[in-house]
Amino acid sequence: MEYGLLFGGKSFEHEISIVSAIALKEVLGTQIKAFIFLDGAHKFYLIEPKDMRSQLFSSGQYKKCPELTLKMHGFYTQGLLGSKKTAFDMLINLIHGADGEDGKLASLLDFFSVKFIGPRVEASVLSFNKHFTKMLAKEKGVCTLPYLFLEHHDKNALKAMDYPLIVKPNRLGSSLGIGVIKEDREAAFVLDEVFEFDSEVLIEPFKEGVKEYNLAGCKIQEKGESTFIFSTIEEPQKKDFLSFDQKYLDFGRTAKVAKADLSPVLEEKMRALFKALYDPLFVGAIIRCDFFVIDNEVYLNEINPIPGSLAHYLFEDFARILEHVELPKPTPIPITYNYINQIQKAK
Amino acid sequence: MEYGLLFGGKSFEHEISIVSAIALKEVLGTQIKAFIFLDGAHKFYLIEPKDMRSQLFSSGQYKKCPELTLKMHGFYTQGLLGSKKTAFDMLINLIHGADGEDGKLASLLDFFSVKFIGPRVEASVLSFNKHFTKMLAKEKGVCTLPYLFLEHHDKNALKAMDYPLIVKPNRLGSSLGIGVIKEDREAAFVLDEVFEFDSEVLIEPFKEGVKEYNLAGCKIQEKGESTFIFSTIEEPQKKDFLSFDQKYLDFGRTAKVAKADLSPVLEEKMRALFKALYDPLFVGAIIRCDFFVIDNEVYLNEINPIPGSLAHYLFEDFARILEHVELPKPTPIPITYNYINQIQKAK
Repeated sequence: MEYGLLFGGKSFEHEISIVSAIALKEVLGTQIKAFIFLDGAHKFYLIEPKDMRSQLFSSGQYKKCPELTLKMHGFYTQGLLGSKKTAFDMLINLIHGADGEDGKLASLLDFFSVKFIGPRVEASVLSFNKHFTKMLAKEKGVCTLPYLFLEHHDKNALKAMDYPLIVKPNRLGSSLGIGVIKEDREAAFVLDEVFEFDSEVLIEPFKEGVKEYNLAGCKIQEKGESTFIFSTIEEPQKKDFLSFDQKYLDFGRTAKVAKADLSPVLEEKMRALFKALYDPLFVGAIIRCDFFVIDNEVYLNEINPIPGSLAHYLFEDFARILEHVELPKPTPIPITYNYINQIQKAK
Repeated sequence: MEYGLLFGGKSFEHEISIVSAIALKEVLGTQIKAFIFLDGAHKFYLIEPKDMRSQLFSSGQYKKCPELTLKMHGFYTQGLLGSKKTAFDMLINLIHGADGEDGKLASLLDFFSVKFIGPRVEASVLSFNKHFTKMLAKEKGVCTLPYLFLEHHDKNALKAMDYPLIVKPNRLGSSLGIGVIKEDREAAFVLDEVFEFDSEVLIEPFKEGVKEYNLAGCKIQEKGESTFIFSTIEEPQKKDFLSFDQKYLDFGRTAKVAKADLSPVLEEKMRALFKALYDPLFVGAIIRCDFFVIDNEVYLNEINPIPGSLAHYLFEDFARILEHVELPKPTPIPITYNYINQIQKAK
């Protein structure tokens, strides 16, 4: 399988997508035939593999690379002799945060019939928006921490909860913009800061020292059979909570991880919850679910529909899995004009 | 204000979008400067106002019209002397069903920075998918009928409910594909039929003779003030439930409607529920909420984020409202390369 790799995006996570792409290049090597960079002005560029260094992007040099246009069935360069399609069998959407995970690129790729690995529009919207993820979890019977959802700065609303609290922008990944309120006098300031990132904010109890576990997976299709594939469950390194700097480095990881120390019962529970959340909404994507374990109960923290460098380091046999990711089957939509013709006949 | 009108779409509702556009042309007249047709192959065409007759589309003649490319800031025709932008101040998304209401076009228009009236990607996904609408209503404290959600044909699951039942494709508007099961021996057949339209199906009790009410509205911005505008509440004509044929004709309506006979308390209740559902998710769109009243309680039936010809016939002063629809404010996303530069310095 030959891949195209889409990265960048107009997003607070623009830079970590670049790092993530460089890390995935190390893993997949020459299987990636096309590196497609989306810049902050929503222009696509075709990047030569040898130019895949962060400095190309931070310096703006990438603007000298050929520009691409997204049209039916692919990305095209425009030359003197007409347009030429960029060759790959399957595109990997590796744009973290806005554009990549909010449903916009899923929509564009679906609309223009580009085959891709990544969350579709519904899956994107329900995982990018943390409030919607809460609703989804509730509907699927998956536990989450209690929460308060704010659409505007309202310090008084916090009275319903006990400190310490963790405050998250509702639509931002990679722990960006997250704040902790330890006591009342910090509340107004922290809320101010978090509202700079989003007009909606989600507030949860902050559980000091809570155990966190990451489980990635997807459905694959092999010899006509559809199967779930799960990664190793990892207990990520962390301090209070992962800061941007730590997560940033995390996106560039290439080494395999050690398995978390968890009972088989809890492991099985996590896989069952993963299945309930994944199927059929996330079909087509390799996702990572982040869970908490509190008093032997598993809670969903968040769903990461495009984890850093696709969480390849959590899988035994990443290249094979990638090759067999199951894709959603589109419903055929016939356009017949039967009704219009009937009306015209009746005239 | 000069409008562009986007209609058609690769959707089961392709034809009703055409009828809807022709009806809106009668209402807005020469204020519509550009008619942009999206065909079943996802190509855009610029249609002359004088050619806006259903026969142009059913005959395939539209393919002789200039093709448009969606790029940054608008739709462009390609001529010998370069590309030319199609002129309008504001685009109206009038594509019902798939493409228009499922988040795809919202994403495309947002991505390419085209100003438009219509639901954004989150609003689209949560209203197009009836199961997600149930989740949203629950979260907002809005009553809906009890339901069963099926991801595959499972006649036995119906045992949890009493007949008669109404069976709906989960992601299809305009009453398309809906079936009623009056007794057990019809169940397998009706489910078969409905699953032809979608891989997900929503089942509710079928309330014979239930009172249904439609309320349209939006937020507008005038002189810096943001206000809710509500339409007349209509009790739509119906038999058992609206069939496609009836709804189809409905999309072409141009006459004003009579106000429904409802107590002021229930009217106020509907407006309050509308506000709770609309704000801030649907900002930018003129939507119609369809409610049931059962034993003096208001239930949400569905949210129609792009009602037929924008439900103009429900409003007193449609042209003015349209001109002042409030649009969502995007969060600025700076792309700085601060982190990448730091890493490079540390090398």
